[in-house]
Amino acid sequence: MSLTLAQLAAALDAELRGDGDMRITGMATLKDATSGQLSFLANGRYRRFLAATRASAVILNAADADAARTAVLICDDPYVAYARAARLLHPAGDSPCGIHADALVDPGASVDAGAWIGPGTIVEANARIGNGVFVGPACVIGAGVSIGADSRLVARVTLLAGARIGQRVLLHPGVVIGSDGFGMAQVSGRWEKIPQLGGVRIGDDVEIGANTTVDRGALGDTVIEEGVKIDNQVQVAHNVHIGAHSAIAGCVGISGSTRIGRHCTLAGGVGVVGHLDIADHVHITGMSMVTHSIRTAGTYSAGTPLMENRLWRLNAARFKQLDRWTRWLHKFDKINNIRKLDK
Amino acid sequence: MSLTLAQLAAALDAELRGDGDMRITGMATLKDATSGQLSFLANGRYRRFLAATRASAVILNAADADAARTAVLICDDPYVAYARAARLLHPAGDSPCGIHADALVDPGASVDAGAWIGPGTIVEANARIGNGVFVGPACVIGAGVSIGADSRLVARVTLLAGARIGQRVLLHPGVVIGSDGFGMAQVSGRWEKIPQLGGVRIGDDVEIGANTTVDRGALGDTVIEEGVKIDNQVQVAHNVHIGAHSAIAGCVGISGSTRIGRHCTLAGGVGVVGHLDIADHVHITGMSMVTHSIRTAGTYSAGTPLMENRLWRLNAARFKQLDRWTRWLHKFDKINNIRKLDK
Amino acid sequence: MSLTLAQLAAALDAELRGDGDMRITGMATLKDATSGQLSFLANGRYRRFLAATRASAVILNAADADAARTAVLICDDPYVAYARAARLLHPAGDSPCGIHADALVDPGASVDAGAWIGPGTIVEANARIGNGVFVGPACVIGAGVSIGADSRLVARVTLLAGARIGQRVLLHPGVVIGSDGFGMAQVSGRWEKIPQLGGVRIGDDVEIGANTTVDRGALGDTVIEEGVKIDNQVQVAHNVHIGAHSAIAGCVGISGSTRIGRHCTLAGGVGVVGHLDIADHVHITGMSMVTHSIRTAGTYSAGTPLMENRLWRLNAARFKQLDRWTRWLHKFDKINNIRKLDK
Repeated sequence: MSLTLAQLAAALDAELRGDGDMRITGMATLKDATSGQLSFLANGRYRRFLAATRASAVILNAADADAARTAVLICDDPYVAYARAARLLHPAGDSPCGIHADALVDPGASVDAGAWIGPGTIVEANARIGNGVFVGPACVIGAGVSIGADSRLVARVTLLAGARIGQRVLLHPGVVIGSDGFGMAQVSGRWEKIPQLGGVRIGDDVEIGANTTVDRGALGDTVIEEGVKIDNQVQVAHNVHIGAHSAIAGCVGISGSTRIGRHCTLAGGVGVVGHLDIADHVHITGMSMVTHSIRTAGTYSAGTPLMENRLWRLNAARFKQLDRWTRWLHKFDKINNIRKLDK
Repeated sequence: MSLTLAQLAAALDAELRGDGDMRITGMATLKDATSGQLSFLANGRYRRFLAATRASAVILNAADADAARTAVLICDDPYVAYARAARLLHPAGDSPCGIHADALVDPGASVDAGAWIGPGTIVEANARIGNGVFVGPACVIGAGVSIGADSRLVARVTLLAGARIGQRVLLHPGVVIGSDGFGMAQVSGRWEKIPQLGGVRIGDDVEIGANTTVDRGALGDTVIEEGVKIDNQVQVAHNVHIGAHSAIAGCVGISGSTRIGRHCTLAGGVGVVGHLDIADHVHITGMSMVTHSIRTAGTYSAGTPLMENRLWRLNAARFKQLDRWTRWLHKFDKINNIRKLDK
Repeated sequence: MSLTLAQLAAALDAELRGDGDMRITGMATLKDATSGQLSFLANGRYRRFLAATRASAVILNAADADAARTAVLICDDPYVAYARAARLLHPAGDSPCGIHADALVDPGASVDAGAWIGPGTIVEANARIGNGVFVGPACVIGAGVSIGADSRLVARVTLLAGARIGQRVLLHPGVVIGSDGFGMAQVSGRWEKIPQLGGVRIGDDVEIGANTTVDRGALGDTVIEEGVKIDNQVQVAHNVHIGAHSAIAGCVGISGSTRIGRHCTLAGGVGVVGHLDIADHVHITGMSMVTHSIRTAGTYSAGTPLMENRLWRLNAARFKQLDRWTRWLHKFDKINNIRKLDK
């Protein structure tokens, strides 16, 4: 796809400085772009590449415009404009329709005529696959699963019986939805399995990354509301409920029956204990463990800073004495009564 | 399946208060249950839902019985009774027998007449699959793999050559057993692979969650003893040995050649360094890193508490000075000799 | 394969003490070895098994030789010698050639006559598969993917469109290469997807473990240079660049656009924030979070030591007061002016 700068400016609602007739054929980073390509500056870290870029034009905000030696598209949020320009210049191809000869579709399944079922994919009884759905190669669609219109299963996605997938959902390879939750009761030192009888409901416009797993509910459903975005290698346990428009980065683990609010973000490697309640607009920084419910919007953190190993060893050893010395300080402060803390 | 309350009371060895002829058709949570359903109260967090539940009956212990407005089944361990009632009310369907026309079974493999091999599944030479085994769709069963009676591979499970799976083992989608361990030697700055020659032995009644990986031994086997339960997204490295009836929660990583005892629990996100020895009945709390062997049963932890980010930044920065100030305190205490720590 | 001790000594450039005609048929650990087997001692932890081993010979270094009661092969680096002996005694079998009848290869794909495509594998249009490549069962090779000579996809590997794989690359089951990066822009509380338009380049001699994911670049490629070894369950985000001969252990997560240097090691469970620059020869210890760029070679760490839970609770609670008490100490030290820190 090729567009003129004037067309792009109009589509992005951006101010153009430069030749509106110039044709743009694709996007690239400031560092890698060549002639005919559009780039963008949205993170100050990359400003140093602006002067020397060989891009034909750059999306940026007004404050950076003067530093550019190229045509520019000026807008308030260059990152959003970049996303939109990329979609305009690299539109998704049309999805095919039909059922590949090497797919295996149960006669009792319902596949819309406008859906595609790829080779090696297995669709079990009573599954319902909507219009415009793309099911890539080597997927397993369990009995009674429903997939809403225009959803896309890239390849090798496993949806187990009873999963309900909304519209425009994007599922990447290795995703497993509807596996059993980790529920068991201890009886005389042995574990007895608790039947996992619930399902999974995935709202519209959800994206789930490669090799992420979402367990079915034990009783009742695991729920991921509309617009939630989940990265790769995430574990969502049984009966978790993730509120709309939250984003969960890679390697996060959310334990059973926890509710995450709307518009939350969990950074990479965060862990959340089970049965908690996290309010809306809560942000957890990377690799923090959440051990209690959070009632107030805000940003929360745990962990210790990275240090040179020799120094870290010394400090980490002292962590073991932290309570002992803090009690010493309390006592010292109290007995001397000379200077109170926080004065 | 529908049962009367009297039948359930007898099966669960519970005291019934209410109409024994009432028919129960399924289970649900206190909050979601409707008429005809049985619920349970096993976690105090959910007691607030007891009074208003629309369940027809509730499993609970004696202390909670008076607060219920429904029929009750009183027992000592409501969680175990719930597990059993769920199995009674929602029994697993019969597993089919035979080999699906779209499965690919090597002529040299041995598949019991009472086993099921699902569509898209590949069974390689000399594999042995026992009676009552269910191999779901899209599995890969490598050469010489053995699977004991009544085991269940839900879907898309990969068992590589030489894995030996016990009886009544439950493997969820995306499980990989027998991948190469991460073994290599450094030679002049390059890594030389160490051939991974061992196998994997999985005991009876083991359950392994979705997308969990268990590497083969380098020499000798990786061993998971009977009754071990492993959640999703867990990594078990080469030559790890996990003792019977231990439970490993999601996102745990266990490094090579470590031995975990019997009846241990590793909570979500725990990491264990290699070549360690963990005693029986050791419990590690979430996201802790285990860096040394543990000789004594008990509960162990690491990490720092979650805080509001602004406060956390201040404290985390001070962590870097911990050794420095602790030495100051030591010196101060020694010189003044006025009050000794811990007095 | 069976070799004499003399043959092994010559191949390993080791000093033999013992009967050079003795035949060795395989390798085993000191603890498990039986007659006819070769063992090794490379980690002091296992020295206690040396005296009683039933191995016929042991690879070890000079300092340990006298303590052995068996024939010995003395060398400077017993771990490297073990790796090589294992390869000599257990050589990889010949890879088959051809396309399995149950593979599905697009007519527009190019498969070298010396490559093998296993059953259930799907090869899409314009893929190019080199000489000596082994593609195991149930793989998906996307459109335009290239795989260099002698690479091995064990089973169930997913390579999405545009991935370029070098020579002698080893990919384990569940690997996904080329999934979309986690890129999105926030617009009025909703997430807009940023098209992920780049590819993935994997250098020669790379190994990637089971269920590891490598996302495609947003613009430009995600790059893993030659000789990099990656363990299981690792997440490599879009536009990450990993320098040659680095090793990434299990459960690591590397966020977008971060550059890892050459000859680095990231131990298990490490997390690295996005857009960082890590120098060559940097080593990060287990479960540390890397939050800033690292300019200097060395070893870096974060985290707190494992403790008995009761003690940990006390110390972790004090972590919340760390800044408060450190300010107290600063003030006390300043006012009294009697003893300065670090004197």
